[in-house]
Amino acid sequence: ARLESLPEHQHLRYNPLRDSWVLVSAHRMKRPWAGQVERPPEEHIPRYDPNNPLCPGNKRANGKGNPDYDSTFVFENDFPALQPDAPDPGSDQDPLFQSKAARGVCKVMCFHPWSDVTLPLMKKEEVVNVIDKWAELVEELGTIYPWVQIFENKGAMMGCSNPHPHCQVWASNFLPNEPALSDRCQRAYYEKHGEPMLLQYAKREAEKKERVVVESSDWLAVVPYWATWPYQTLLLPRRHVLRISDLTTEEREGLAAIMKRLLTKYDNLFEVSFPYSMGWHGAPTGPYLKEDNSHWQLHAHYYPPLLRSATVKKFMVGYEMLAQEQRDLTPEQAAEKLRNLPEEHYKTR
Amino acid sequence: ARLESLPEHQHLRYNPLRDSWVLVSAHRMKRPWAGQVERPPEEHIPRYDPNNPLCPGNKRANGKGNPDYDSTFVFENDFPALQPDAPDPGSDQDPLFQSKAARGVCKVMCFHPWSDVTLPLMKKEEVVNVIDKWAELVEELGTIYPWVQIFENKGAMMGCSNPHPHCQVWASNFLPNEPALSDRCQRAYYEKHGEPMLLQYAKREAEKKERVVVESSDWLAVVPYWATWPYQTLLLPRRHVLRISDLTTEEREGLAAIMKRLLTKYDNLFEVSFPYSMGWHGAPTGPYLKEDNSHWQLHAHYYPPLLRSATVKKFMVGYEMLAQEQRDLTPEQAAEKLRNLPEEHYKTR
Ligand SMILES: O=P(O)(O)O[C@H]1O[C@H](CO)[C@@H](O)[C@H](O)[C@H]1O
Ligand SMILES: O=P(O)(O)O[C@H]1O[C@H](CO)[C@@H](O)[C@H](O)[C@H]1O
Repeated sequence: ARLESLPEHQHLRYNPLRDSWVLVSAHRMKRPWAGQVERPPEEHIPRYDPNNPLCPGNKRANGKGNPDYDSTFVFENDFPALQPDAPDPGSDQDPLFQSKAARGVCKVMCFHPWSDVTLPLMKKEEVVNVIDKWAELVEELGTIYPWVQIFENKGAMMGCSNPHPHCQVWASNFLPNEPALSDRCQRAYYEKHGEPMLLQYAKREAEKKERVVVESSDWLAVVPYWATWPYQTLLLPRRHVLRISDLTTEEREGLAAIMKRLLTKYDNLFEVSFPYSMGWHGAPTGPYLKEDNSHWQLHAHYYPPLLRSATVKKFMVGYEMLAQEQRDLTPEQAAEKLRNLPEEHYKTR
Repeated sequence: ARLESLPEHQHLRYNPLRDSWVLVSAHRMKRPWAGQVERPPEEHIPRYDPNNPLCPGNKRANGKGNPDYDSTFVFENDFPALQPDAPDPGSDQDPLFQSKAARGVCKVMCFHPWSDVTLPLMKKEEVVNVIDKWAELVEELGTIYPWVQIFENKGAMMGCSNPHPHCQVWASNFLPNEPALSDRCQRAYYEKHGEPMLLQYAKREAEKKERVVVESSDWLAVVPYWATWPYQTLLLPRRHVLRISDLTTEEREGLAAIMKRLLTKYDNLFEVSFPYSMGWHGAPTGPYLKEDNSHWQLHAHYYPPLLRSATVKKFMVGYEMLAQEQRDLTPEQAAEKLRNLPEEHYKTR
């Protein structure tokens, strides 16, 4: 093993997608934990709750009723962070007090009519429906908006306030910080190396194997070399794909299958419904549709907070907020742990 | 009021210290909260706990005993993320798999012999002792290390695993991401405008008043125009000061006084010991001591997570992790709320 893979030695690793470094101090896993213990994720959720605004047929906060949906269901967020009609704040000449207009739309998407399922427990065809809907929304909102952010906050620990399986889609008239940075990094790499960064990365990880969690003929999930969250993963197609809407029918089926495998492993790690935030990054849309985006490669980031058990998470605080992200086990250790877990869900075993 | 100060209108604001944007969607405070509720911060902590490794006279994990200290007390972290002797991982030629050596030292500093006090409840002279010790550590560790990060994680909600009042000091042989970015931004501003960014900023905020929380003849605390955390503040000297070790005796007394005032307001906001991560940023040290750092201005960042009450925090998840930070009230609303709170602590009233 290369020296950096040895758990005893702290070192820095470079994240080429964010042009930043992470401090890997694996020996920190030895320290005892006397800090905050989280409530374990709720395991007993009723299939239908008459008071849950996301269930089929129920009334939402604004008085509107949900249809009796039997697959996915998309509606406008009742408390949107982005609205289509916000006025321009007007610009100050002072460089220290700069503001800009922000316009957009926030949608919520239920994955399934039942509250007691999650993606890994859904049928493959049901997950394909979710993927098709994601692609449709990127296509539709992407005609106008430069960025369409699909993300799922799963679990109360990750700020999710409703146990019904759902994600959000926020489209904006601006390229947010994270994709703007990722765009710059991927572009610079492409200009220097003549191939998309993440396409080369996926090839090398598939050869190296030590950070691979699950793979198939068209997809790959790895704990990236530069992972910051303990069990963070990066999910990538093997073919050069710009946006989720560009995936073929076959690739969508492959994606549903690999998502189910990855998320089953996540749930099996501590035998709980694994909390995380996840989201898709692909080439920007709207006015960018006319530009050359060959440097982009579609990918999903999974950021799960748990570190030691179902109730002890990694706190990204203090040093992490003020100086630099720091992790307590190597990405290779995390990948190995996930890789060795069964692919059958603990709830259906 | 300028349009951007109106709580109804979402907009973007620019953070010149991080060259990034924050989405301000103040109307989101209207949404009901059905998500995770935190355990309120522990209010009854014994003055002395025979099992607490930070109390005077007690044994720590490594078997070493603490002295019977009666002021501040500094020792080496028993589970350091940075050690002085880590080997060089050796460098890969591949730009996607880059690592670097990380060396340093992690210290813990107790503020006071008693577990049942916090900075706002300590005497002014006791807070001056803490500031003097901070200055001493920056001076001492700064002879070798380019970066000395002083930070305090306060409250279990912020990953703090010991209620005894303390902070940490991590010194490293590298400039971490956050200060490296801040250094670049301050340097570019200085080159363009001929004055340190934060010196100009403090002057303008002192005139504008709407974001000021507390001020004195030599210090200023504001909710910065670009705040991301709900009640985030920036604490600045009015004079051009590069590092905490450069503060005069008078300025240290002024700092102790303004810290007590700011932290008392924080505690009074929801009548709990207010959780936060805070830390100092000043000009880099070690090899940088020989360089011109006129673009730097010493400052402290306070990042408190609470949003609505003592038990409901802001989750920086999903959209924030994958796209851009978003806040639910304007910085002006937050500053006004803090400004109007009494300066007498709710526990001593
Ligand atoms: O060193 P502590 O207080 O045990 O640990 C805390 O602070 C560290 C530095 O901010 C973080 O890396 C840890 O996640 C957090 O729990
Ligand atoms: O929109 P929700 O699910 O109510 O809210 C959650 O996700 C948002 C987007 O990531 C965050 O801004 C909120 O802090 C979080 O609680």
